[in-house]
Amino acid sequence: MPYKPVDSETVAALRSVCGDAYVMTDRPGMEPFSHDYTEDLVFYPEVVVRPRTTAEVQAVMRLAYARDIPVTPRGGGTGLSGGALPIHGGILLSIDRMNAILEIDTENMMGVLEPGVITQVYQEAVEAQGLFYPPDPASKGSCTMGGNVAECAGGPRAAKYGVTRDWIYALDVVMPDGRLVRTGSQCLKDVTGYNLTQLFVGSEGTLGVVTQITTRLMTLPPFRQTLLIAFATMEQALATVVEIFRRGYQPSACEFMERAAIQVAIAQKGAKVPHADAEAQLLIEVDGFDLDLVENTLLAIGELAMENEAVEVTVAQQPGQQKTLWDIRRACGEAVKSISIYKEEDAVVPRKHIVTLMRGVQAITKEHGITAICYGHAGDGNIHINILKMDMTDHDWNERLPGGITAIFELVVSLGGRISGEHGIGYTQRPYLPIALSSDELDVMRQIKAALDPKGLLNPDKIFI
Amino acid sequence: MPYKPVDSETVAALRSVCGDAYVMTDRPGMEPFSHDYTEDLVFYPEVVVRPRTTAEVQAVMRLAYARDIPVTPRGGGTGLSGGALPIHGGILLSIDRMNAILEIDTENMMGVLEPGVITQVYQEAVEAQGLFYPPDPASKGSCTMGGNVAECAGGPRAAKYGVTRDWIYALDVVMPDGRLVRTGSQCLKDVTGYNLTQLFVGSEGTLGVVTQITTRLMTLPPFRQTLLIAFATMEQALATVVEIFRRGYQPSACEFMERAAIQVAIAQKGAKVPHADAEAQLLIEVDGFDLDLVENTLLAIGELAMENEAVEVTVAQQPGQQKTLWDIRRACGEAVKSISIYKEEDAVVPRKHIVTLMRGVQAITKEHGITAICYGHAGDGNIHINILKMDMTDHDWNERLPGGITAIFELVVSLGGRISGEHGIGYTQRPYLPIALSSDELDVMRQIKAALDPKGLLNPDKIFI
Repeated sequence: MPYKPVDSETVAALRSVCGDAYVMTDRPGMEPFSHDYTEDLVFYPEVVVRPRTTAEVQAVMRLAYARDIPVTPRGGGTGLSGGALPIHGGILLSIDRMNAILEIDTENMMGVLEPGVITQVYQEAVEAQGLFYPPDPASKGSCTMGGNVAECAGGPRAAKYGVTRDWIYALDVVMPDGRLVRTGSQCLKDVTGYNLTQLFVGSEGTLGVVTQITTRLMTLPPFRQTLLIAFATMEQALATVVEIFRRGYQPSACEFMERAAIQVAIAQKGAKVPHADAEAQLLIEVDGFDLDLVENTLLAIGELAMENEAVEVTVAQQPGQQKTLWDIRRACGEAVKSISIYKEEDAVVPRKHIVTLMRGVQAITKEHGITAICYGHAGDGNIHINILKMDMTDHDWNERLPGGITAIFELVVSLGGRISGEHGIGYTQRPYLPIALSSDELDVMRQIKAALDPKGLLNPDKIFI
Repeated sequence: MPYKPVDSETVAALRSVCGDAYVMTDRPGMEPFSHDYTEDLVFYPEVVVRPRTTAEVQAVMRLAYARDIPVTPRGGGTGLSGGALPIHGGILLSIDRMNAILEIDTENMMGVLEPGVITQVYQEAVEAQGLFYPPDPASKGSCTMGGNVAECAGGPRAAKYGVTRDWIYALDVVMPDGRLVRTGSQCLKDVTGYNLTQLFVGSEGTLGVVTQITTRLMTLPPFRQTLLIAFATMEQALATVVEIFRRGYQPSACEFMERAAIQVAIAQKGAKVPHADAEAQLLIEVDGFDLDLVENTLLAIGELAMENEAVEVTVAQQPGQQKTLWDIRRACGEAVKSISIYKEEDAVVPRKHIVTLMRGVQAITKEHGITAICYGHAGDGNIHINILKMDMTDHDWNERLPGGITAIFELVVSLGGRISGEHGIGYTQRPYLPIALSSDELDVMRQIKAALDPKGLLNPDKIFI
């Protein structure tokens, strides 16, 4: 449907809802809201609004609905698939001012918060009370809990603790027409009507605007230890990963870095690790409530790695050593992307197929004349494949990239995997969605979108083309 | 919309789809499909079909869709809210012949199966391979995995392992018009389009017919021990429950029985337990991969119970002793229901509010002149409230019951809880749904139903009135 422009009368109405200071139409003011972490894409909205309350969000949505103006919700702007980009202009609805932690309940072990709370701020607040919110996306220092809900953010700890959806009890959601619905409850078990909570989690801001979040929490495990294990081959590293879980060990993280990834990361950090020239490294963390069990599990995993011919097992029992190893792992993303213009893919496959995926990516990139560096969350099969432009011409890059990505995703799907594990489809991954979903499956999703957003105003043209 | 009757030509068409032997219209043949475990409700379908394959289910659905005939899917028929009752006649679609386990993958730790597989059969099959499928509804010996998916079944182990939804990776679903969609993948992380899997889980057979299920599995924990703890007061018992979780212990079951429940159960079983006259008993199970940790956790929970003035802590380390205790717990449901005509409610509240709920139920039943016996899953706040007719007249029962139930559910919702934790809304709980959900929330659910089942043919008039 045709969208209407944001006219001065609409801006005035938005100002009366949110206050003059929180409605911007000047280009410098809107600049920070015109891009996220997705490549170098820039789209300016026509107006930025920064509501403070659910009632203000409802008023903004009602106003947009009445005037056929598209609305793009935005959290921390750290998305990697362009979900927060206002590609049709319209209203950019930033939740950054809705950033209060409303309740931390140590008896029921749950928390209630507004969606603009930074993930790390929430984690530290609950940890101060002896509690634990496990999901830890790489951008936790700047992403918001609302954005995490929208994208169903993951991170290393998903291997043991699951992803954002596993920690969300309930949501307040403002629908595209301004209605407020409360989904879920404060209970683990709940079959009181459809599971709307899990429909909204991961819906990338296309079905409603989340204005309040209730999360599950657990008691903070007091012990945590880390291993870095170097392997001469990927096959050995990834066979070790499969066997760790098969034996019933539940590491709180089981990360994978291929040689090129760790080498650029240690170069950037000026750090050293043993056998940085090994083809593959695993960074494994074990946490728990019993120090002996944590140590014994770490030991058993180390022995298992040696059975799989690990070149070196480095134990980090002290927080300082652990931080160094994690700093290297966390540096991979930025270090790899600093090399060149890039396109990051976020594939996920069953654990046992990671090695097939990795060797397949090597063959595909070679065949298509492109370069890729991989690292990611081996414990849950989620591998980030960074395709680098390097010294290719723009023409070659634009020619070869889509074919390479398509071939990689076709391999992923053939292995029982999916084209996005934690970054979402957003704007940039839309062309590839039909590789993973049939037209009937896409139609069912579109039917839900049309039922809940009949005018197609909320984050339009995301997920689906 | 007006439903059309099943005429002889339709029956002939169904016979040509499923085979003569698997289409029944005679009353004795249809009798087993005319009721489930919900009170004494009986509704006969016009025809029973028992397809063997997804393609047959698709053909049945297409046929029903073209002829405006309602279809009610049915698993094991053990539902407690009437979800499988063909209240409008039409076609009863039984999945009992779709009962093959297709794959158990010990490396990726997942299983693929048809929906008619009995839950316990699946559990035993995966355990034979050293794997574990935790959800264990009380009816596991006769309920089906398809029914478990439809109702998002729970059970005691949810306290540690979550409910059915937490173990479902992917579904094949036949839509009301016969389209087949595959939701999810074989991966823990997946944000490739909307989370249709979790929309279908718990949708009580109103949005689609599940014809294939992919579940997560984990390594079977080899150690398991059990405690029965008697308390003089509910307050002491339930304070112990809150503290168990607060301290980070993760019992694999934490069950609650009030005095009347355990007394009828031991009478039925001819069993004995210490202090059967105590007001409340907790049955606690701890499992794990490390025997020392299991034993130490059990010990610590026992000590914690003594701090909370437990009357007696009985340890069951041997499987035989454990079975006796679990037999008593499992007998509660049947024993309580054998006393009298009954109505069972399936409330769930945050753990710390269970005691307020229990005392509230006592006050409400007294005020309304009714009798209730309670037991359930204290670890996740899910309490089964069995209201008994006893020697009340039919008139008094019909007069007093709705008011009593309404008062109980209003209390539940005021405590942040929900009116069904694991039994679903189905047919019998529909009148109470507006206590838990606003009209906007119901409307959003109805919009989804209308989008996916525009003719309203699939399990009509369930969940919503």
